[in-house]
Amino acid sequence: MELVTGGAGFIGSHLVDALVSNGKTVRVLDNFSSGRLEFLSHHEDSEAVEVVKADLLDSEAVRRAMSGVEVVHHMAANPDIRLGTTVTDTDLKQGTVATYNVLEAMRLEDVGMISFSSSSAVYGEADVMPTPETYGPIKPISLYGASKLASEALITAWCGTFGAKSWIHRFANIVGPRGTHGVIYDFIHKLKVDPSRLEVLGNGMQEKSYMSAHDCVQAMVHLVDNTDSDVNLYNLGTGDTCSVRRIAEIVVEQSNLEGVSIDYTGGDRGWAGDVPKTSLDVDSLFSTGFRPEMMSEEAIRNTASALISEIGL
Amino acid sequence: MELVTGGAGFIGSHLVDALVSNGKTVRVLDNFSSGRLEFLSHHEDSEAVEVVKADLLDSEAVRRAMSGVEVVHHMAANPDIRLGTTVTDTDLKQGTVATYNVLEAMRLEDVGMISFSSSSAVYGEADVMPTPETYGPIKPISLYGASKLASEALITAWCGTFGAKSWIHRFANIVGPRGTHGVIYDFIHKLKVDPSRLEVLGNGMQEKSYMSAHDCVQAMVHLVDNTDSDVNLYNLGTGDTCSVRRIAEIVVEQSNLEGVSIDYTGGDRGWAGDVPKTSLDVDSLFSTGFRPEMMSEEAIRNTASALISEIGL
Repeated sequence: MELVTGGAGFIGSHLVDALVSNGKTVRVLDNFSSGRLEFLSHHEDSEAVEVVKADLLDSEAVRRAMSGVEVVHHMAANPDIRLGTTVTDTDLKQGTVATYNVLEAMRLEDVGMISFSSSSAVYGEADVMPTPETYGPIKPISLYGASKLASEALITAWCGTFGAKSWIHRFANIVGPRGTHGVIYDFIHKLKVDPSRLEVLGNGMQEKSYMSAHDCVQAMVHLVDNTDSDVNLYNLGTGDTCSVRRIAEIVVEQSNLEGVSIDYTGGDRGWAGDVPKTSLDVDSLFSTGFRPEMMSEEAIRNTASALISEIGL
Repeated sequence: MELVTGGAGFIGSHLVDALVSNGKTVRVLDNFSSGRLEFLSHHEDSEAVEVVKADLLDSEAVRRAMSGVEVVHHMAANPDIRLGTTVTDTDLKQGTVATYNVLEAMRLEDVGMISFSSSSAVYGEADVMPTPETYGPIKPISLYGASKLASEALITAWCGTFGAKSWIHRFANIVGPRGTHGVIYDFIHKLKVDPSRLEVLGNGMQEKSYMSAHDCVQAMVHLVDNTDSDVNLYNLGTGDTCSVRRIAEIVVEQSNLEGVSIDYTGGDRGWAGDVPKTSLDVDSLFSTGFRPEMMSEEAIRNTASALISEIGL
C-alpha cells in the first residue's frame, strides 16, 4: 500500500494515476483545501484507490492513515506560493509542521520510505544557472521555498536519526491538466473576465523551468525505483526554460481569441518572493536514464489547451 | 537597543557581555529553561541590560519585546542536540517555530536586522572537509540540525519577501565558561560521580571543530559590523579540529585526578544523529579580517578548567 498525501491535488492526482497504472494500491490522504474529488473520479469504481479526508495537522488521523503503508508520497502543501507575502503562517503549518507530522507518524508506525515533492523554490536567486543540486548555500526567498527546505531538512534528519529512506524531488514549475494555480491558470482566468486584454504582473522577462505533471510523476516513480541511497535528492525538470512573455503568447494563441492586448505592469518580478529566473540543472536526473516526453514550451501549450477546456472561456 | 533571545544562556550571555562592552543597550529575552540569571549577575547594577522572562512560543510577548529594538540576536534554542533522538518536537517548537515567531514579530514591529546562531549541524555528514559554506546539498542528520536549517530558510525568506537584513552564523562546537551541555560538561559530571573512571560514548575517534565562546561572540559582532549583504552567511570556527579522545585526556589532565581509566563504549558515533567528523572551512570568515584568539585544543583546555571550577569535583 502506498500513501499519497495531497493525492486529490493537482500533481498528487497525477501521481495516483501513475501508481495505479503500475499496479499499486493507493491510499489518498487529502483535506480537500485545494484538492478535488473529481480529480480522482476515474478511480471511483476501482479497488486500487482509497480516499481518506483528513488534515495533516491532525496527527492522530495521519497516524491512522499509515496502517499497512510501505511508501509515503508526501505531496500535500499549500500550492499558492504568493500567499506567503500576506499570510505568513500557512507554509509553516501546511508545509513544515505537516511534514513533521507525516514523519513522526511514519516513525511510530514503522513506515520506512518517503518520497517528497520539494521545489526549485529552495534555491532562491541562485548565482549559478542552470542550478545543480550541489549548489550552496541555498537561500530561499519565499516562505513557500523556506517550508520546502525545512521539510527536506526534517526528512534527512529522520533518515539520519531513525533510519528512514527518502527521495527528495526538487520540482521545476509543474504544469498540466487539473492545475489549480500558477501563471497559466491565472492568465486563463483573466481572459475569461476580459477577453480583450491580458494583464501580466512584472515585465514578462521572468524565465523559469517548466515540466509537465505527467513527466514529473513519471520521474518521481523512476527515481524511487532506480535510486537507492539513504537520501536520494534530485532536480526534476526538462533542462530548458520559458519566459512569462512566451507563456502569455501561447495562452492567447490557444484561446483562439482575436485582438487580445498583452499588457505588462513592469518590474523584474511578479511579486515579493517571486524568483525572476530559475533554470534547473537536470544532469543528475538524466544520468539515471530518465527523459521527459515534453520540453517546457510543449508542456505549457499542452497545459494551456487542457486548462482552457477545464475552465472554459 | 539590541535584543538577545536566549541571552541568559551559555553563548547568549557571552554575547550580552560583548555587546555591553561595545557600549550597546541590551534587552535579554529568555525563558530560563537552560539559561540562568547568574550568567548575567555581573550586569545586575547596570542600566545597560534589561531582562525579560518570556517564552518565544508566546508570540505576543515576543512582539512586545521588539519595542525600540534595532537588531535581534536570535540565540535561543534547545541546547541539547541529543534530545531529538527521544523527543521529536522540541527542536521543531523551540527552533523552527520560535524563529518564525521572532521573524513575524520583527515584521510587525518594523525591526530590520537579525543575527542568528546557526550550526555546523546543518551539514550533516558532508563529503567535503573542511566544509565550506558553498557545500551542497546539505542534509542534516539530527533534528537539531534540521531546525537550524529550517530557521536559516525562514530568515532568508523574510529577507527576500519583506526586506530584512540578516547574518547567519554556522557555529562550530562552541565551548567555554557557563557551558550547560556538551561533551566537556558531560565528562566533568561523569568524573564527579566516579572519579576513577571516565566512560566515553563511541570509540573516541569523533573529531570536530571547536571554538571558544569568547571568540564566537567576537566573530558574530565582527561580521555584523563588517559585512553588508542582505544575507551574510558564514562558518564560525578556528579552522582546526580535536578528537573526543583528546578531549577526554585534556579533561582528565585538568581535573588533577590520578589514575582515571578512560573507557570507550565503541562505535563510530556517540548516538544516532551524532556526526562522527566535522571540520569547518573558515576561509570566508578569515577573509573578513577576523582571527580567533584560541585554537580548538586551547579552547577545550580553557573550558575544562573553567567548568571544573563552576561544577566542582
